[in-house]
Amino acid sequence: MPEWNLPEERCFDPDPATRRTALFLYEAIAGLPIVSPHGHVDARLFADPAASFGSPADLLIIPDHYVFRLLHSQGVPLEDLGIARLDGGPVERDHRKIWQRFAENFHLFRGTPSGLWLAYEFKYVLGIHEQPDAENASRLYDQVAERLASPEFRPRAVFERFNIEVLATTDPPADPLAAHAALRASGWPGRVIPTFRPDALFNLSDPGWREQIEALSQASGIAVHDYPSFLAALENRRAYFRQMGATATDQGLFELEVEPLDETDAKVIFRRALDGIANPDDAVQFAAHMLLEMARMSCADGLVMQIHPGSLRNHNPAVFERFGRDKGYDIPVRAEFTRSLRPLLSRFGEDPRLRLILFTLDETTYARELAPLAGVYPAVRLGPPWWFHDSWNGMRRYFDQVMETAGIYNTAGFNDDTRAFLSIPARHDLWRRAGANWLAGLVARGMLGRDEAADMAVELAYRLPKKAYNL
Amino acid sequence: MPEWNLPEERCFDPDPATRRTALFLYEAIAGLPIVSPHGHVDARLFADPAASFGSPADLLIIPDHYVFRLLHSQGVPLEDLGIARLDGGPVERDHRKIWQRFAENFHLFRGTPSGLWLAYEFKYVLGIHEQPDAENASRLYDQVAERLASPEFRPRAVFERFNIEVLATTDPPADPLAAHAALRASGWPGRVIPTFRPDALFNLSDPGWREQIEALSQASGIAVHDYPSFLAALENRRAYFRQMGATATDQGLFELEVEPLDETDAKVIFRRALDGIANPDDAVQFAAHMLLEMARMSCADGLVMQIHPGSLRNHNPAVFERFGRDKGYDIPVRAEFTRSLRPLLSRFGEDPRLRLILFTLDETTYARELAPLAGVYPAVRLGPPWWFHDSWNGMRRYFDQVMETAGIYNTAGFNDDTRAFLSIPARHDLWRRAGANWLAGLVARGMLGRDEAADMAVELAYRLPKKAYNL
Amino acid sequence: MPEWNLPEERCFDPDPATRRTALFLYEAIAGLPIVSPHGHVDARLFADPAASFGSPADLLIIPDHYVFRLLHSQGVPLEDLGIARLDGGPVERDHRKIWQRFAENFHLFRGTPSGLWLAYEFKYVLGIHEQPDAENASRLYDQVAERLASPEFRPRAVFERFNIEVLATTDPPADPLAAHAALRASGWPGRVIPTFRPDALFNLSDPGWREQIEALSQASGIAVHDYPSFLAALENRRAYFRQMGATATDQGLFELEVEPLDETDAKVIFRRALDGIANPDDAVQFAAHMLLEMARMSCADGLVMQIHPGSLRNHNPAVFERFGRDKGYDIPVRAEFTRSLRPLLSRFGEDPRLRLILFTLDETTYARELAPLAGVYPAVRLGPPWWFHDSWNGMRRYFDQVMETAGIYNTAGFNDDTRAFLSIPARHDLWRRAGANWLAGLVARGMLGRDEAADMAVELAYRLPKKAYNL
Repeated sequence: MPEWNLPEERCFDPDPATRRTALFLYEAIAGLPIVSPHGHVDARLFADPAASFGSPADLLIIPDHYVFRLLHSQGVPLEDLGIARLDGGPVERDHRKIWQRFAENFHLFRGTPSGLWLAYEFKYVLGIHEQPDAENASRLYDQVAERLASPEFRPRAVFERFNIEVLATTDPPADPLAAHAALRASGWPGRVIPTFRPDALFNLSDPGWREQIEALSQASGIAVHDYPSFLAALENRRAYFRQMGATATDQGLFELEVEPLDETDAKVIFRRALDGIANPDDAVQFAAHMLLEMARMSCADGLVMQIHPGSLRNHNPAVFERFGRDKGYDIPVRAEFTRSLRPLLSRFGEDPRLRLILFTLDETTYARELAPLAGVYPAVRLGPPWWFHDSWNGMRRYFDQVMETAGIYNTAGFNDDTRAFLSIPARHDLWRRAGANWLAGLVARGMLGRDEAADMAVELAYRLPKKAYNL
Repeated sequence: MPEWNLPEERCFDPDPATRRTALFLYEAIAGLPIVSPHGHVDARLFADPAASFGSPADLLIIPDHYVFRLLHSQGVPLEDLGIARLDGGPVERDHRKIWQRFAENFHLFRGTPSGLWLAYEFKYVLGIHEQPDAENASRLYDQVAERLASPEFRPRAVFERFNIEVLATTDPPADPLAAHAALRASGWPGRVIPTFRPDALFNLSDPGWREQIEALSQASGIAVHDYPSFLAALENRRAYFRQMGATATDQGLFELEVEPLDETDAKVIFRRALDGIANPDDAVQFAAHMLLEMARMSCADGLVMQIHPGSLRNHNPAVFERFGRDKGYDIPVRAEFTRSLRPLLSRFGEDPRLRLILFTLDETTYARELAPLAGVYPAVRLGPPWWFHDSWNGMRRYFDQVMETAGIYNTAGFNDDTRAFLSIPARHDLWRRAGANWLAGLVARGMLGRDEAADMAVELAYRLPKKAYNL
Repeated sequence: MPEWNLPEERCFDPDPATRRTALFLYEAIAGLPIVSPHGHVDARLFADPAASFGSPADLLIIPDHYVFRLLHSQGVPLEDLGIARLDGGPVERDHRKIWQRFAENFHLFRGTPSGLWLAYEFKYVLGIHEQPDAENASRLYDQVAERLASPEFRPRAVFERFNIEVLATTDPPADPLAAHAALRASGWPGRVIPTFRPDALFNLSDPGWREQIEALSQASGIAVHDYPSFLAALENRRAYFRQMGATATDQGLFELEVEPLDETDAKVIFRRALDGIANPDDAVQFAAHMLLEMARMSCADGLVMQIHPGSLRNHNPAVFERFGRDKGYDIPVRAEFTRSLRPLLSRFGEDPRLRLILFTLDETTYARELAPLAGVYPAVRLGPPWWFHDSWNGMRRYFDQVMETAGIYNTAGFNDDTRAFLSIPARHDLWRRAGANWLAGLVARGMLGRDEAADMAVELAYRLPKKAYNL
């Protein structure tokens, strides 16, 4: 039963001078409040003061595709991990058994960011000092279950213990944001804010599109019967989101393409979509066009605009049909920004009212396209390393490839982007260590003063995300 | 006459703590048997107990495009290096002169992997302690020639001294595998196994295709007269290869594209090819289709499937016409896996009977596509850094970019992939050092326990390739 | 008022053994003359012995898009930085105010190469020991202005103090090279040579193309009225440039595409261009064709050929219309060399008369395409890291990704490629440090002998560019 190996100076470069400086820089920022401006935690966890995280498997395995994809990659069926089937077919319901599979295969997380996060969660959040293995699995299950049953592990209590200053969720435009409203009404001081994510409304070829439009009409009170009423309904919901605390929008896309349609074409295409006769080409053009419309609306209402492109979602259709989205089968593709964003940036890139935060899953765009764009356009900021890249080495590559050309002041600090609530401090801790270590390397190389580094460490950990997201 | 600079702790990071751990991890795996599941050594070297490596130039220069390409890049004509012309025209036949050119230009290998391998071969395999240069060239030539004439330098003796547990060759389907048969019949215990590589049969636009089909008919005893008989003949040869010890197939491709044809279309295209009227588009479609067929056959017979895409072979047509293939003129192109492999993985990626090992010459696909694919599909494993990338830095980048997302257990250990037999231990040594150093870095950073690292070092050096290739 | 932090061993890895070796290697090359074979300094600075650098803002801010783009990226209007508008509209003319904006925002350069270069220029060239900030801005302005007014800061004096052995400028073919001629006639021993850059002549779709052709006719004395007279005029100007000291040509391109036209097609397209009826496709084909023609001419007259592809120039049309080119809005795109250069290299790649130096803004091509090409074709050399990549990390990535496959002897040393004359020694110093540090890392890892490293350091700093550019 090996114990966790989490020395205080973990992750830092082993060179003693660098490590000392890294630790010095880190210690000054380790306790700063967490700003989490982009993520996928469910606001209902905090709306009800008595909400609970469920079983240990509910907390750490079943909702977290980072975790179960690695078990599955070595042949463990998703059913055995309790992943619900869309057809309601049988899956493992004994959470102790699911936990056993996880513990037996815990070696699969060696050297992975999930391994680091889990170590942090076990040791520092749950107070479990042994690593899971085949023998201790059941005992650890009981220990975790006991913790989760205690009042200190109610989500609100954990939120407060995590020292979260603000947590953003991600929500469809038609969402009534009932949990957010309840939470605000409850008087609880935790700041949980929505983010406006209209992807489903912009994807004309989605079979559920018509339904989404209905929901939008209902939510906005504006009957969407043509393109202008569609825009009006969107603006109405953006205003509602702002009223509920939102400071940002978000758009996920497969491939970035931004070409403006003229007003007439936009109307015609939207008409065809309402009539159910839009073709795939219409869908591509409309989605591209709506990026520009969203930029225009951001100039008007001040919501920060985020773009997350480049994931081929649901790579395996059979898995998708059986289990649905977010099952680890989202695989990145090459991305392109220079040409794709030109129409948008030509129109709005110099506008002082726009802030556009860009993310990528294709690291080759860091130094080649994104840092040069962020390093000249006043509107552009670079989001932190995303998804597969918010790991120790992913962060190192980001600092290495982005900062020289963009400068840190054109970046947006960190997003944890997680649906695994318990991993939030682990992820921010890794980012803070990565920033401290990068800065310490510059100090040790005589390329930066110690005081400058100390100031930059606070920017990266705390000030930059607040500024970038108008928080 | 500088001596070789090969300290025992070579390659490891200079930080003392990391270096100590790296050396500790390395020493425990340095003596493990060599598993070489993919390469291009000629089996005839081992079929005849009296076979010899030839002259020093025959051994180290003439067959090794890694070596002669660097000499040529600085203007040395290939003819002067004894590279045979296809038209039988005159090339240098005095191997001592070839050796002289090599020795005079030995500085070209500074900082290259070939330089490291050659140093190892000279010092540890041949027992030569000086670096070649213009002055000592002739003397070293005599020393090497003397070694090669001795019984300890018969290929079988060297194979045994290298502690090779298994060595795989690469062979066309119609090959009778006579050397493999002779070798097995001889009672010599060395394990040398074939690999089924059908590229020439799947390339309808190759002028020699018809001839290859004839050879396949003859070898299989199945007259290939249509698509079904083609499949039958292939299955027949796969069975023969398996019987001769093969555990894997291999396919080299320029660009990866995998689209299934329906049965009828496959038949029609194959018919056109037999009639000599297939068009380039047919060729592309057929090659793509055959990847799927090979996956299907692997599910049936258990041969591990390898794919090596992305090299534009014979970049200079004049050199190709004069000297033929494998002359250093194979230049990588961008690769794509996410979209290309989707049809194959949608059909077979979840099948527990398939193991698919992927290689790339485009390192941008490591973190972006390959690690995410290997990190979720049970069938997928990642091959080691290949060709231009099986260097110290290439390995560092591989560990850096692959392991966090895929985990080591979804990789396949090391392949030396060489036709230079003498370089095999040098290449495996470099990999073992690279693995030990990567793990030592994680230990020094407190991101991995020492015991975990020791276990992972054995996986990387020995267990993973055996598991991946069913050895 | 923090002082500059520029320790003698700056940039080097902190590991003491590596650092000692790096310093040892660096000290032996730090004083070598500067060879600057590719750049954009104005020769007129040296033609007139009494020329001056102007005000502090004229010297360090207004002409340097590396500097003003970072200020602009945080919202400072280009007008406020004194960037001239094409329409002559009002911009800040008070250079002290421009300097104040620069000094107030000096933190933006933290961790960027511009920050390192500026530190070097302030401390070592200008003798200013404080970092600029809001308080000391005006005082530093006066100090710098005072320096610039002194005789030691005449451009010729600075050139000599910089120990520049040769400085190449970049010039259009029709340029009379009057400054170069005056400079040679003056008897001043500084070697400033032109470079033949015909981009504008090869871009048929440029509105100013006809005018360029007129200028070419005039300069060459050959009336360009068809394709053969165009070639003759080009050859005439190449001869003139050679006579004025040029050893190289240069071509900038958006996307590399090299397809030969046959003589007849070239004539027809050129005819259409003269008649003002060339179409965009003609322009693409003609530009591609002219790469081959330039290679052919280089074989004939011995001028080294350079290619700089992959920048999407003037990304924001509004900024371009207002301020013109070179305003920081040049954003790289993906590059491709393997396929694109095949026609050129098939024809001329083995020709001992050609030297082709390749540059890239897409680092993914280093290991994948460029190093393999340079590592086999005798004609090919690799240029140094370019533009956004001539930074500390950019250089590290270059050494890491290029050298193992190409070997250092197939590279071309360093280019500073700058229009900021004062930054030249700072940039060469960074390169020399980067080379020393890379080599020291190999020595510390036992992968290279100390003597070999010392010799290679001189190659990288001095001998390789002289050889590559026939200087």
